[in-house]
Amino acid sequence: MPQSSVLPQVLLPHEHLKPRAQAWFESLRDQVCTAFEAIEAEAGSTARFERKPWDRPNESGGDTGLGGGGVISLMRGRIFEKVGVNVSTVWGEFSPEFRGQIPGAAEDPRFWASGISLVAHMASPRVPAVHFNTRMLVTTKGWFGGGGDLTPMRLDAPEAQADAAGFHAALQAACDRHDPTYYPKFKEWCDRYFFLPHRNEPRGAGGIFFDHLFSGDVEADFGFVQDVGLAFLESYPAIVRNRLGEAWTAEERAHQLERRGRYVEFNLIHDRGTLFGLKTGGNVEAILMSLPPEVRWP
Amino acid sequence: MPQSSVLPQVLLPHEHLKPRAQAWFESLRDQVCTAFEAIEAEAGSTARFERKPWDRPNESGGDTGLGGGGVISLMRGRIFEKVGVNVSTVWGEFSPEFRGQIPGAAEDPRFWASGISLVAHMASPRVPAVHFNTRMLVTTKGWFGGGGDLTPMRLDAPEAQADAAGFHAALQAACDRHDPTYYPKFKEWCDRYFFLPHRNEPRGAGGIFFDHLFSGDVEADFGFVQDVGLAFLESYPAIVRNRLGEAWTAEERAHQLERRGRYVEFNLIHDRGTLFGLKTGGNVEAILMSLPPEVRWP
Repeated sequence: MPQSSVLPQVLLPHEHLKPRAQAWFESLRDQVCTAFEAIEAEAGSTARFERKPWDRPNESGGDTGLGGGGVISLMRGRIFEKVGVNVSTVWGEFSPEFRGQIPGAAEDPRFWASGISLVAHMASPRVPAVHFNTRMLVTTKGWFGGGGDLTPMRLDAPEAQADAAGFHAALQAACDRHDPTYYPKFKEWCDRYFFLPHRNEPRGAGGIFFDHLFSGDVEADFGFVQDVGLAFLESYPAIVRNRLGEAWTAEERAHQLERRGRYVEFNLIHDRGTLFGLKTGGNVEAILMSLPPEVRWP
Repeated sequence: MPQSSVLPQVLLPHEHLKPRAQAWFESLRDQVCTAFEAIEAEAGSTARFERKPWDRPNESGGDTGLGGGGVISLMRGRIFEKVGVNVSTVWGEFSPEFRGQIPGAAEDPRFWASGISLVAHMASPRVPAVHFNTRMLVTTKGWFGGGGDLTPMRLDAPEAQADAAGFHAALQAACDRHDPTYYPKFKEWCDRYFFLPHRNEPRGAGGIFFDHLFSGDVEADFGFVQDVGLAFLESYPAIVRNRLGEAWTAEERAHQLERRGRYVEFNLIHDRGTLFGLKTGGNVEAILMSLPPEVRWP
């Protein structure tokens, strides 16, 4: 079934964006992979991303009549201990039990979704882990969602606070170019979302988080999402380069492995995207790509 | 508030059992710790369990007016890489949102619960991990629950199948002494419960699982629960001793660390006990004691 025939509402502005949105997410993936590989190369490593395409099964837990798929790009490097970048473009119908939870799906269960999702776990405990994703969803409504958040290992260390400040500044600049209300709103949303209630602690130093974004001007929204991607691409590699030369102790490494346990706890207990993906028959390898390469619960 | 005054239904047979049930769970904890420490000593290790008592906060997520607490016994040994045994005895009231989920709690939200819970992650990939727990619950109804399951690292290895056969035989003997329908029913319940739908694979080689057990004869049920504990105490140390002398390769160790990832996925995504505990303000350290000391998601 051609993607363009899934939703007949030709007047829905997001409908026209589908090919451009998908192309952007894939282009951003290419740019990110190139930037991360360049850092590996500067460190004398020959690590490269390996790509693995996957097809969405025709029938799965939460959807019927599915199509599409994605590509996992995974690199195990000297600097990037494990970094996964997943792009996917999928379409189909939400099963009855999920229709009430998705805007516009109660009226018509058909959907189209495309996005990029990325998690990097770093070899050095001095370099923060990072998560970034942006996506476009189309049902009888259309919207963008996404965000990025930084996870330094020692939140209260001055270096971590400097890294977080740079990350936030880049995201804020991208937000402010579009709407002055975005950054405060999306920053607070991020703090609220990336929080572990059972530990009563934040996952990290935050960033931005947004969902169901439709300002009424789809081109402006798409421009915003592109700018958020570029802000990530500008800020995170700079943070990595800035901390690369720092030596670390075995104690710091042990602490990092323990902090990664909190990352696992968040993703498996609380993260709606992870749980929704696993319960609706998403690609398990792509979804759990976010889990750290090595973890300790001492 | 004295425990005996929590529920006024003096005719409920489980009411009289409370002190004996608690004493049994604590006695079993002592016997298990002694047995595991003996194995460490035989291997020339001086590792011992460290005990850490905890008090239940007066108010928490899912309960109000709570009391009681527990003791975590944790050993990091040469053979037992990490083993935690938790006993707890708690009482209070279920909050309105949980009353409908617990038998007998809709009529009166007060509850009393006592139990033992144990998870062992072994240094050798040739020795299966194990989980065991038994508990008594009292609301306006009373019942026992629990079970035990074995997690060999390579399910299809003949050694793993021999270990699993011994474990199942001990549990079956305990079951059969009480009711010939128990073992087949509780074995199947265990297979159904300890299953990872998102991986479409069992957590391990199974065992038994039961809940809401009240046969009408509370002394018989208590006797059964004691026998299940003794069957665990008889069978698991024998399995450990039998595999202790086997050397293993770095590849087997790496595989073990990866299999432990499945254990984490099960406990954080699917295990009702873990999620219920975390959402009702249970003791996080005691609940997450089950997580492995070292894990990989390569």
